[in-house]
Amino acid sequence: MKLASLKKGRDGELIVVSRDLTRHCGAADIAPSLQAALDDWETIEPRLRARFNALQQGEVTSFPFDPGECHSPLPRAYHWADGSAYVNHVELVRKARGVEMPESFWTDPLMYQGGSDTFLAPRENIAMASTEWGIDFEAEVAVITGDVPMGTDAEKAGGHIRLLMLVNDVSLRNLIPGELAKGFGFYQSKPSSAFSPVAVTPDELGHRWRDGKVHLPLHARLNGEKIGSPNAGVDMTFNFPQLIAHAAKSRNLGAGTIIGSGTVSNVDRSSGSCCLAEVRMLEMIADGKPSTPFMQFGDRIEIAMYDEMDADIFGTIDQRVVEYVAPQ
Amino acid sequence: MKLASLKKGRDGELIVVSRDLTRHCGAADIAPSLQAALDDWETIEPRLRARFNALQQGEVTSFPFDPGECHSPLPRAYHWADGSAYVNHVELVRKARGVEMPESFWTDPLMYQGGSDTFLAPRENIAMASTEWGIDFEAEVAVITGDVPMGTDAEKAGGHIRLLMLVNDVSLRNLIPGELAKGFGFYQSKPSSAFSPVAVTPDELGHRWRDGKVHLPLHARLNGEKIGSPNAGVDMTFNFPQLIAHAAKSRNLGAGTIIGSGTVSNVDRSSGSCCLAEVRMLEMIADGKPSTPFMQFGDRIEIAMYDEMDADIFGTIDQRVVEYVAPQ
Repeated sequence: MKLASLKKGRDGELIVVSRDLTRHCGAADIAPSLQAALDDWETIEPRLRARFNALQQGEVTSFPFDPGECHSPLPRAYHWADGSAYVNHVELVRKARGVEMPESFWTDPLMYQGGSDTFLAPRENIAMASTEWGIDFEAEVAVITGDVPMGTDAEKAGGHIRLLMLVNDVSLRNLIPGELAKGFGFYQSKPSSAFSPVAVTPDELGHRWRDGKVHLPLHARLNGEKIGSPNAGVDMTFNFPQLIAHAAKSRNLGAGTIIGSGTVSNVDRSSGSCCLAEVRMLEMIADGKPSTPFMQFGDRIEIAMYDEMDADIFGTIDQRVVEYVAPQ
Repeated sequence: MKLASLKKGRDGELIVVSRDLTRHCGAADIAPSLQAALDDWETIEPRLRARFNALQQGEVTSFPFDPGECHSPLPRAYHWADGSAYVNHVELVRKARGVEMPESFWTDPLMYQGGSDTFLAPRENIAMASTEWGIDFEAEVAVITGDVPMGTDAEKAGGHIRLLMLVNDVSLRNLIPGELAKGFGFYQSKPSSAFSPVAVTPDELGHRWRDGKVHLPLHARLNGEKIGSPNAGVDMTFNFPQLIAHAAKSRNLGAGTIIGSGTVSNVDRSSGSCCLAEVRMLEMIADGKPSTPFMQFGDRIEIAMYDEMDADIFGTIDQRVVEYVAPQ
């Protein structure tokens, strides 16, 4: 089943999208928003699935699907926590800084909480006051959970996964060192993220969803040119159930919690990178200095995942960086 | 105007509470939840205020007010960011650890983002798996904002404050060092927070709300004994408008954003402390080691603020720590 949220009000209007992303039909009569559906998933999910099946069979009135009309599947959420599950990426960051990575990073996930009150739409401009902040994208995979009781272990956590999406976890690289030095983690350096136009149930991925990972390449294109397509199922040290269990150690997670994978990254560098910071670190290690700049006003980033038949699964995140002017 | 949320569904049912906290009347016909009211505040606020005035005049059917029936004013929120505005508290933490505090901490606020998907009710048990985690309370003041555009400066930020509340920012002290050492800030060490039964508009505080600060003592009692009552208007290095401006530097803040003050703390130690960590640090500095333990199962924490006539303004946060057993 594939779901999306048309731009309407603060929470969007829930729609069901055909598997091939060409058609959609309304679902607001079943649940007004995706959050409302997640709040009552056991009751709502079978009805949405019936609508999806009817759409697939051409048995309901449907309309052409336009990702540009979509907000992020959850335009705002109560919880957005992002892991760093591709530990080789973290190791690389450290290596470029000349810092050893603690051994514990291979067994204890890194996770930070991001702003979830004002997500960007999948085709919305990334408006920033200054390119001096070092604007970067991070291409990731994320899950949306139902209610997860505190203390749920990794074995059981997988059963709470409701939907999968892609993420552009926008990062302000030049604000990070100062912010992390303060010791409280990211805040200003992680502005609003954007998600793929469509969220899909795990069964849509078939055999590509196994071991709590998505076994497909994640494609990142900058100004139309490939930056990377590492496989999200490879070198993911912590799978999604492990990340969820980490998040739920000391509190309940509410329905609609989004847990991200962190920047997808493969040890095999031939598949490229899913963020400019990694590109620059590899340049630094190779040449002593980075040569690729961070994003400039006008730059375009596309993030997508395709099946073996080159069919776009989640719709493509497609954003441009523009200059932001604060209100007077 | 005073507002609260009766326990009902995931978002509570909005009620209006009398100034003396003895009576309440329904407001769900105006807005079903506090979040719904905040989403459309310009339209909704005058109607809620009319209801509040009618309640004060005895012109509507009202019922006895019981804080035990209340959830936190926002049972779940899209954004909960907590500052550390009482910098002398931060300095003390560092001093106890033998670490110098950077000068920049006096001009650049510390802020972390907390879990906002599953707040505790004001009278709900703090259920934790282990006292080994070092369970502590933090008594704080918080504001709820409307929509705040990215880049809003401190001069304008004050105009976006809608409501004030008290907070118990529950902290797991023994999980903090390991978590901060990883460099990504708090996550597991900051479990679900609880808020005061009642949220009030700034005008309810009269002259005690000025310079973006609340000029009244904040009372913390542990097992019925006073731990501290520092004045929230004293030694607050960053006022709420400054904290909001910090939060809004690189993104829009959504209506219903909660910004906390951090643990209230006065340089004059005679007024006591608003968390056990500070009590223990003062013991460490005086005696070389702390003698007060963190919270044990059964311990009770009360947090309240009174006006000059000893009238409870927000209702009292009143919680017990109990043992949590994870679901099998």
